[in-house]
Amino acid sequence: LAPQGDKMMAGRFVGSTDPIMEMLSASITVDQRLSEVDIQGSMAYAKALEKAGILSKTELEKILSGLEKISEEWSKGVFGVIPTDEDIHTANERRLKELIGDVAGKLHTGRSRNDQVWTESFFFSFCIPPLPQEIDVILPGYTHLQKAQPIRWSQFLLSHAVALTRDSERLGEIKKRINVLPLGSGALAGNPLEIDRELLRSELDFASISLNSMDAVSERDFVVELLSVATLLMIHLSKMAEDLIIYSTSEFGFLTLSDTYCSGSSLMPQKKNPDSLELIRSKAGRVFGRLAAILMVLKGLPSTYNKDLQEDKEAVFDVVDTLNAVLQVATGVISTLQINKESMEKALSPEILSSDLALYLVHKGMPFRQAHIAAGKAVHLAETKGITINNLSLEDLKSISPLFGSDVAQVFSVVSSVEQYTAAGGTAKSSVSAQIEQLRELLKRLKEQA
Amino acid sequence: LAPQGDKMMAGRFVGSTDPIMEMLSASITVDQRLSEVDIQGSMAYAKALEKAGILSKTELEKILSGLEKISEEWSKGVFGVIPTDEDIHTANERRLKELIGDVAGKLHTGRSRNDQVWTESFFFSFCIPPLPQEIDVILPGYTHLQKAQPIRWSQFLLSHAVALTRDSERLGEIKKRINVLPLGSGALAGNPLEIDRELLRSELDFASISLNSMDAVSERDFVVELLSVATLLMIHLSKMAEDLIIYSTSEFGFLTLSDTYCSGSSLMPQKKNPDSLELIRSKAGRVFGRLAAILMVLKGLPSTYNKDLQEDKEAVFDVVDTLNAVLQVATGVISTLQINKESMEKALSPEILSSDLALYLVHKGMPFRQAHIAAGKAVHLAETKGITINNLSLEDLKSISPLFGSDVAQVFSVVSSVEQYTAAGGTAKSSVSAQIEQLRELLKRLKEQA
Amino acid sequence: LAPQGDKMMAGRFVGSTDPIMEMLSASITVDQRLSEVDIQGSMAYAKALEKAGILSKTELEKILSGLEKISEEWSKGVFGVIPTDEDIHTANERRLKELIGDVAGKLHTGRSRNDQVWTESFFFSFCIPPLPQEIDVILPGYTHLQKAQPIRWSQFLLSHAVALTRDSERLGEIKKRINVLPLGSGALAGNPLEIDRELLRSELDFASISLNSMDAVSERDFVVELLSVATLLMIHLSKMAEDLIIYSTSEFGFLTLSDTYCSGSSLMPQKKNPDSLELIRSKAGRVFGRLAAILMVLKGLPSTYNKDLQEDKEAVFDVVDTLNAVLQVATGVISTLQINKESMEKALSPEILSSDLALYLVHKGMPFRQAHIAAGKAVHLAETKGITINNLSLEDLKSISPLFGSDVAQVFSVVSSVEQYTAAGGTAKSSVSAQIEQLRELLKRLKEQA
Amino acid sequence: LAPQGDKMMAGRFVGSTDPIMEMLSASITVDQRLSEVDIQGSMAYAKALEKAGILSKTELEKILSGLEKISEEWSKGVFGVIPTDEDIHTANERRLKELIGDVAGKLHTGRSRNDQVWTESFFFSFCIPPLPQEIDVILPGYTHLQKAQPIRWSQFLLSHAVALTRDSERLGEIKKRINVLPLGSGALAGNPLEIDRELLRSELDFASISLNSMDAVSERDFVVELLSVATLLMIHLSKMAEDLIIYSTSEFGFLTLSDTYCSGSSLMPQKKNPDSLELIRSKAGRVFGRLAAILMVLKGLPSTYNKDLQEDKEAVFDVVDTLNAVLQVATGVISTLQINKESMEKALSPEILSSDLALYLVHKGMPFRQAHIAAGKAVHLAETKGITINNLSLEDLKSISPLFGSDVAQVFSVVSSVEQYTAAGGTAKSSVSAQIEQLRELLKRLKEQA
Repeated sequence: LAPQGDKMMAGRFVGSTDPIMEMLSASITVDQRLSEVDIQGSMAYAKALEKAGILSKTELEKILSGLEKISEEWSKGVFGVIPTDEDIHTANERRLKELIGDVAGKLHTGRSRNDQVWTESFFFSFCIPPLPQEIDVILPGYTHLQKAQPIRWSQFLLSHAVALTRDSERLGEIKKRINVLPLGSGALAGNPLEIDRELLRSELDFASISLNSMDAVSERDFVVELLSVATLLMIHLSKMAEDLIIYSTSEFGFLTLSDTYCSGSSLMPQKKNPDSLELIRSKAGRVFGRLAAILMVLKGLPSTYNKDLQEDKEAVFDVVDTLNAVLQVATGVISTLQINKESMEKALSPEILSSDLALYLVHKGMPFRQAHIAAGKAVHLAETKGITINNLSLEDLKSISPLFGSDVAQVFSVVSSVEQYTAAGGTAKSSVSAQIEQLRELLKRLKEQA
Repeated sequence: LAPQGDKMMAGRFVGSTDPIMEMLSASITVDQRLSEVDIQGSMAYAKALEKAGILSKTELEKILSGLEKISEEWSKGVFGVIPTDEDIHTANERRLKELIGDVAGKLHTGRSRNDQVWTESFFFSFCIPPLPQEIDVILPGYTHLQKAQPIRWSQFLLSHAVALTRDSERLGEIKKRINVLPLGSGALAGNPLEIDRELLRSELDFASISLNSMDAVSERDFVVELLSVATLLMIHLSKMAEDLIIYSTSEFGFLTLSDTYCSGSSLMPQKKNPDSLELIRSKAGRVFGRLAAILMVLKGLPSTYNKDLQEDKEAVFDVVDTLNAVLQVATGVISTLQINKESMEKALSPEILSSDLALYLVHKGMPFRQAHIAAGKAVHLAETKGITINNLSLEDLKSISPLFGSDVAQVFSVVSSVEQYTAAGGTAKSSVSAQIEQLRELLKRLKEQA
Repeated sequence: LAPQGDKMMAGRFVGSTDPIMEMLSASITVDQRLSEVDIQGSMAYAKALEKAGILSKTELEKILSGLEKISEEWSKGVFGVIPTDEDIHTANERRLKELIGDVAGKLHTGRSRNDQVWTESFFFSFCIPPLPQEIDVILPGYTHLQKAQPIRWSQFLLSHAVALTRDSERLGEIKKRINVLPLGSGALAGNPLEIDRELLRSELDFASISLNSMDAVSERDFVVELLSVATLLMIHLSKMAEDLIIYSTSEFGFLTLSDTYCSGSSLMPQKKNPDSLELIRSKAGRVFGRLAAILMVLKGLPSTYNKDLQEDKEAVFDVVDTLNAVLQVATGVISTLQINKESMEKALSPEILSSDLALYLVHKGMPFRQAHIAAGKAVHLAETKGITINNLSLEDLKSISPLFGSDVAQVFSVVSSVEQYTAAGGTAKSSVSAQIEQLRELLKRLKEQA
Repeated sequence: LAPQGDKMMAGRFVGSTDPIMEMLSASITVDQRLSEVDIQGSMAYAKALEKAGILSKTELEKILSGLEKISEEWSKGVFGVIPTDEDIHTANERRLKELIGDVAGKLHTGRSRNDQVWTESFFFSFCIPPLPQEIDVILPGYTHLQKAQPIRWSQFLLSHAVALTRDSERLGEIKKRINVLPLGSGALAGNPLEIDRELLRSELDFASISLNSMDAVSERDFVVELLSVATLLMIHLSKMAEDLIIYSTSEFGFLTLSDTYCSGSSLMPQKKNPDSLELIRSKAGRVFGRLAAILMVLKGLPSTYNKDLQEDKEAVFDVVDTLNAVLQVATGVISTLQINKESMEKALSPEILSSDLALYLVHKGMPFRQAHIAAGKAVHLAETKGITINNLSLEDLKSISPLFGSDVAQVFSVVSSVEQYTAAGGTAKSSVSAQIEQLRELLKRLKEQA
């Protein structure tokens, strides 16, 4: 036998491999997570081989018990990877041969390594944020980070929850494309052993089988889709983190984060830094970087397998780990933060109601465009006088429009203001309650499906 | 009135605007495509306002006829945009006021500009590539750009078609999230006029209404999703283009592209360059760039509307235009290319059948791993002797394994080889025909749904 | 002649071109900016051809006067582009032939189109932000968006100015790699006419000539470099914009932006939105998208020219235009904003001096780590008592450490605090003044070099 | 003391930290590479503190010998990191306290953690590819992957070498911006201890000191620059890899890669796959992903330190490791590949000389545009006749142009063709030799500078 011992290409190859080259192409540390799924895939494939007449009943049993032994070794942490193992699959096969002898070699028939790696990458868990219900807490809503209109705190939280439901929906949708069995596609031409791919599919619990062997051995759509969906999810969380970072500055003062999710400064004793939120925000960049990497790897690649595709698994594992960690921290931050109602109330300065002033005039019959200009004049007049808009006298207001009457006083109630927005999705109590109900039902439905 | 004339903020603002600033924020050239949808949106909203008691029947009729006139002007190309028009909506409203007077101002009540832009961006067409049927044409299949196993040309084309069906599926899925009505969300707090959003939805033919007003005014998920799906579609096409560029080199010689999709050289008279395929390949970069841009714009942005979001429309329009052009060119290239069967046959050198040689030994009872090594030795022996593998004598082969018999000769038939891959998705004629049938049915179904 | 008329490949080609294909590959609208440089390049090349004996003196004169005429037509806006013009170069040559007849055809000898496009893309201007000198204005410095230590407003502005000087330095460095003459590289093998590239270089005022013809015809390093440098510059500006957006919220209240750089709301009369800063922030995404696009286009491309490279010019032009607009707006925003000193002073709450409290103890001989903990205890004690740290009694402080003495009162002076940071680059008045001096000198030097 | 023991924020904080949060923010495994530089930085800082009067001579000596001991522990691999160590700096300080007691706490005075991390990230090595000299080997040069003109193999290799010299130049240029000392910037306001930053600079061998403390604590320009430069370098290598992958297909057959840099197939015994080149190509995606990540992290971040910046180090280390591995493999591949001269010669089909045919007519006085069309007609005529262009009879040629004479035969010599390109940078032997000379001198100069 050639110096490389059992390495598959021993028959033909005469040189040895540059150690740096081995380092660059080794993916075994990344692959270790796949050991269990590799073994399950091998078991299903052995059964299909027996059904196709390639393995005898006895051989099948030998192989199955050998694989069970290997599975045990992995779970006990006693499986020994050795330097010549190229990846998790050759490691498992090498061990199988040690355990049951040459019959182990029959297992590989008709499968290529890619085939095996590919089957085993489906997964993932997901966490929907809590929906606190301090429904009577009102704070300024901002556009352009400038005070715009009063809103309920629940409306704010719901805006982020609603965004995340779309991420959840997307993750659900890509599952069916991940859950496609490529096994039985061989190196690229298909499987030559009249294997029953439907049997494999039901044994391995996949939703469907891949349609074309050449596509199946190299398509990484599920990686791109997963990373795209993860990136958008992280973008949503980065925006939520940004809001909360700003709201927990001493200048806004709307929130106090739990010490559990903050850090101090090694230099400034008074500091309490929202590290958790900054980490969440930063991970949007990290996850996008993984997406960008895999897309560039794929661009312009020739059909079927090329070694370039090796970049896929580390990216997926890193993104899944990052997502899980980030979602747990986000859940923790939200569920432990304290709302500072007083600061919120103090921030509800009367100017925030100037669109309500315009609306008052509209209800009195003025076209909106003119009403908007009139309200703008009131804002300007108040600024000039150095007072707040609600302290303008009725005369001041009448100088802008004769439509103003003494009932204008009622405009300057924050609660009345938010209660105007009863249309679906708005910030009135009824609308907010309806939204909470909708999300709870969605959650219930998703949990039932899982 | 202030110097800016009718500009909305006239009531409060005292300065004027830096011309460069106007250039940077002007999106009217980009917006012109939205004129028709803007008008339809305004009509639906006017009807809802009448129902909500804000407009009288007469006012509604006046507004509707004014909007129809504007629609006509756009379609005849006589609508005149003037410098102070900020965007398509203010242009339309300015014109409406010219046509019907102050009552035009009533239309804006309760809507913000974002609200309007947002409603109007759903769209897109899509083209599935043809499925030629030169089913008996066989060529080498490649992995790592090295000859691997013989495959049918149809199997190759199908591998790209199957990838594109996933893109089609994804485009179908995102439609429902694009087709959500945000109108009635106001600036961020919702709509204060008891507007019936369900009525608006059915008038404007949306699938559902947005759940939360703060989310609705600023979420750009549909942009990210559309650009993500478009990027993966372009990645697929870039890979197909790469294959075809390589196959149409004189060295491979498998394909001759139509002159229609090639260019000559200004310096070298013999050149015929596959410009069309290179353009397709390059557009993957362009589309990804648009995705990368919008993701970075969104990262860490505070809630609700910020001017940053203005980057969205140009990106969407450019990507949609690029996709349409690329898909048409791809369709044209594929439908006009000529297959050079002789070159393909010539390329089917016997070494491509060495996995069949191993398979022969497996059928004789040798474990696959050993059979693989034995076949490798045969390849090496043939190389040493300077002959092709099918010209090894039976004695040569027997020196490697006694299992070789005179029936080994039948291994070296390319047609027999491909016909082994009868498992679903493989390259046998039956599997290829089944794939074509599957795709045709999918197409039929999609066309019926449209 | 063939139906395509004068198109260069007329001799060999028999088909016509798909109109969509023409649309996809047409770059003439993008190229128009290059007309003048194209003509200058042609003039220099004609002179070199005359020197090489390919053109006679008379032919040279004819060509030069023809080119001058074309230059005039462009500058007067009367040059007529016709549909069969592929790009600016074929347009100019077609026109030259109309003006001076067949001798025009001699000009092209030995040049390929790429050759010409490539030469002509060097450029760019740059704007360094003003350095206001309200040196006595002190505000809180923030880390993690939490108050950290008092700093001078000038120190804050200088931090952004200093970042921009690195961008300026980088732009200066890439100039020399842009300023390399590729002309004389032909299609890929070089120039066969014994052309004097040194003559061309000095005629066209390039710094050096390209080293290798195959590299020269396709390298787009200058595009990637320019876009990389531009992206980092935009990242810097996005950070500055973020700071200013936050500082101009009513909650921080440190700044009032000029109306010129703000917009109002179409719905809320009181709003004054920092659109200018949001646009600046968003353009970081746009510019990065251009970089990402070109990098993906280049990845894995075979050597020398491929049509994929066509994406380069639009990217460069868009980035240069964006940069110029953004820098002008940034300059405008900074030079017109008003500082609200009172709000800044109010924000300098005593806790911001707790690191000074620790420092006090260090000066009394306590190791820093212990001093830091002691100061932390003081912060905590003040919080518990509901008072600010400067209102702790000496007894309170002594209960934490006996090293506290009556001189601790002097710690709570903001001016004294900032004046401690006299080390180079710090926020003491002397250090700030030194920084301003350094930047002024750099500016002077750069202006002298220009 | 609080439960966290010595954690810096012990004085103020009352909660504990979520373990997931710790995982997310732990960077100690990434930081271990920095241990040595951390210690050197601490030594220099201790000396500066002694000079500033904060440390006594004795304390300085104690600290220095403690740090030396820690350095030894790291180099022997016996340093024990414990769970509460936040990063390499707190680990080193914790150990220092164990070794020398409380005086260790004095070391931290005036430094923040960021300060320390920042100082220590300069580095990198670089490898320029070999310049083989098979100067007489000629092969087809390609544009659009179609044969264009004959070139020397050395010209091809030089085209890649020349691209890499620009990467080398860029790496040289960014060194000076990496080599800036931020130490002495404190948390953001500067250093309050009258520390001599010039002394620190010369002790730690930096080129210059940072100009502004707020900028210094958070600017990550060197990360972006390094990653940008690395990305372009990897793009260059991906293009070289693509060329070599195509040239080593059996269809092109120009190259045979060493077995050392190839892999076999687990299914197809005849396969020899250019894995090394595919890995090189793919790493362009990986490195770009890192750049994209850090740019997105930085976009829109507020001034000074935010925890988001933690993403920087892993990115830098991964990119540096990837670069080193890729450059070694690239060096190995190039230095061991075999050139197949016969295949190259065979590929030099006469059509590749048709631009020379046009040039022949130009030398006879025909304008280039007409000559190009005439040569195109010759190509077309040969195609029609089913012969190669050099087998057209003189009569055939004269039917196209009377300028053709019997001396046309000499056009069809490949060696004569390449020898025409004597202009600088061309493929004539003299030009190629001059290029090699230029690169050797550059190498020499760079080695002398190192």
